[in-house]
Amino acid sequence: MERYDIAIIGTGPAGLEAAITAAIRNKKVILIGSKDLSQKLAKAHEIRNYLGFPAVKGEDLAQAFQAHLDQMGLSITEERVSAVYAMGDYFALQAGENMMEASAVILATGVVQGKPLPGEEEALGHGVSYCATCDAALVRGKKVAVVGYSAAEEAEAEFLGEICPEVLYFPMYREAPQLTDRITVIPEKVVSLDRSEGKMLVKTEKMDYPVHAVFVLRDAVAPGQLVPGLETEGPHVRVNRRMESSLPGLFACGDLVGTPYQYIKAAGEGNIAALSAVSYLDEKKRSIRNG
Amino acid sequence: MERYDIAIIGTGPAGLEAAITAAIRNKKVILIGSKDLSQKLAKAHEIRNYLGFPAVKGEDLAQAFQAHLDQMGLSITEERVSAVYAMGDYFALQAGENMMEASAVILATGVVQGKPLPGEEEALGHGVSYCATCDAALVRGKKVAVVGYSAAEEAEAEFLGEICPEVLYFPMYREAPQLTDRITVIPEKVVSLDRSEGKMLVKTEKMDYPVHAVFVLRDAVAPGQLVPGLETEGPHVRVNRRMESSLPGLFACGDLVGTPYQYIKAAGEGNIAALSAVSYLDEKKRSIRNG
Repeated sequence: MERYDIAIIGTGPAGLEAAITAAIRNKKVILIGSKDLSQKLAKAHEIRNYLGFPAVKGEDLAQAFQAHLDQMGLSITEERVSAVYAMGDYFALQAGENMMEASAVILATGVVQGKPLPGEEEALGHGVSYCATCDAALVRGKKVAVVGYSAAEEAEAEFLGEICPEVLYFPMYREAPQLTDRITVIPEKVVSLDRSEGKMLVKTEKMDYPVHAVFVLRDAVAPGQLVPGLETEGPHVRVNRRMESSLPGLFACGDLVGTPYQYIKAAGEGNIAALSAVSYLDEKKRSIRNG
Repeated sequence: MERYDIAIIGTGPAGLEAAITAAIRNKKVILIGSKDLSQKLAKAHEIRNYLGFPAVKGEDLAQAFQAHLDQMGLSITEERVSAVYAMGDYFALQAGENMMEASAVILATGVVQGKPLPGEEEALGHGVSYCATCDAALVRGKKVAVVGYSAAEEAEAEFLGEICPEVLYFPMYREAPQLTDRITVIPEKVVSLDRSEGKMLVKTEKMDYPVHAVFVLRDAVAPGQLVPGLETEGPHVRVNRRMESSLPGLFACGDLVGTPYQYIKAAGEGNIAALSAVSYLDEKKRSIRNG
């Protein structure tokens, strides 16, 4: 399997800046995330404090970022990483059915807004899953529910529709879902999840829906769930000023590591994370050569 | 005396971003530094990793920064701050003969490259000064020397020429100084300073020059000398991830707080420092109201 020097997860300002800086330092980089870059950025009405871009629209700033990627010849690998495992000498990244390997990882996945649903964490791995592709084999032929937090999750629901006879889709956002007939859209707000007699119950304001499994799909996965063993502080990854996490070789930056949630702060931290990752790799190479 | 909410010292990317962010948060800001912004930036051949500006010339990036200041209606106060004193409730800033007051201070003065001259620190305040304007009264009518590290120091030498009968000027840079006849330019490299029989000796590779006092003038003053009592780590101010220094109400950012010395990192930290200063001021206001 091809092994990258640095895998960067997230395509907001932190991830983009990290990728650009690492590429300039001649590292073999894979940048994983959405080709639409950050949804939050694209939808921002006006940004006034990204130095160099006075009163810029979010979409224009995103376009400038894209032009920067293009000029560097950097492309985005559109995958959803569901788990990162520290293997000692390298990291294994699970993205759907694909596995990827990298010597260092930079997390720039943004911050998960909002709390988990009541009952969600308790049932994780026992009826609750965050990744339709990963757990497809476990639910084939069963009735399942998808709690989708953005329109981007609709594709996952369609995928489940191909292997499950019944898929209930609970949209947790305003826009009307664009789904095929095989998906049953239930426009009710989910308030909690529960287990009862070997089934999962999706409880809405109106009633309970029993299913075999529930897929809770958000833009970002909580960092402690994404990377087993990673030290966190609430929704944030604990890092020092070099953007080093508690796991050697794993760095984090941007909204994921704490407030203020600001684009220029995120970009600045992406730069630091990339240069720290470069130092880590160089140091490792030196110690192998000398050892 | 007018008291500012936040005094920002330094006009590189860190200081500019701090000023913009603080102004957006409706704070009364004074931005002190060079109207030419950062010399290092303006002279940069090409910058490749300031996200949003692919392969940009330093002067073009500086122009974009200036346009941002203009759009915000922010101007630069061209003074050289020689000392910042923590007065408990506020800070007093000494700039030549002027004093200024601010409730919070953000230092973004860049990093002092290079070491002090041998003998320089030992004689500080006893024959060595960093500020011609401040110590003018002490040297009136005496023979003095100026060790100037950039052409910007020549104006200080001229000022001394008005009050001292003899001024020796040692340029520590390549360009030929543009000075009037009353200043004696000595194009020899200064290697150390020393005291002998109540005089200061400026020692060059060729000979010793006895004078009453020596003015060592650099673009940036070491932070521990600028702010008495401030905790430093080598040439850097010690800060946490909120850019808080060891003195409450005093924040620092950019190259001054450590590597990597990168524009986007500096700008990101300026943003954090400004928002931390805003929180500090809001908190202080609340505790006064409640106390």
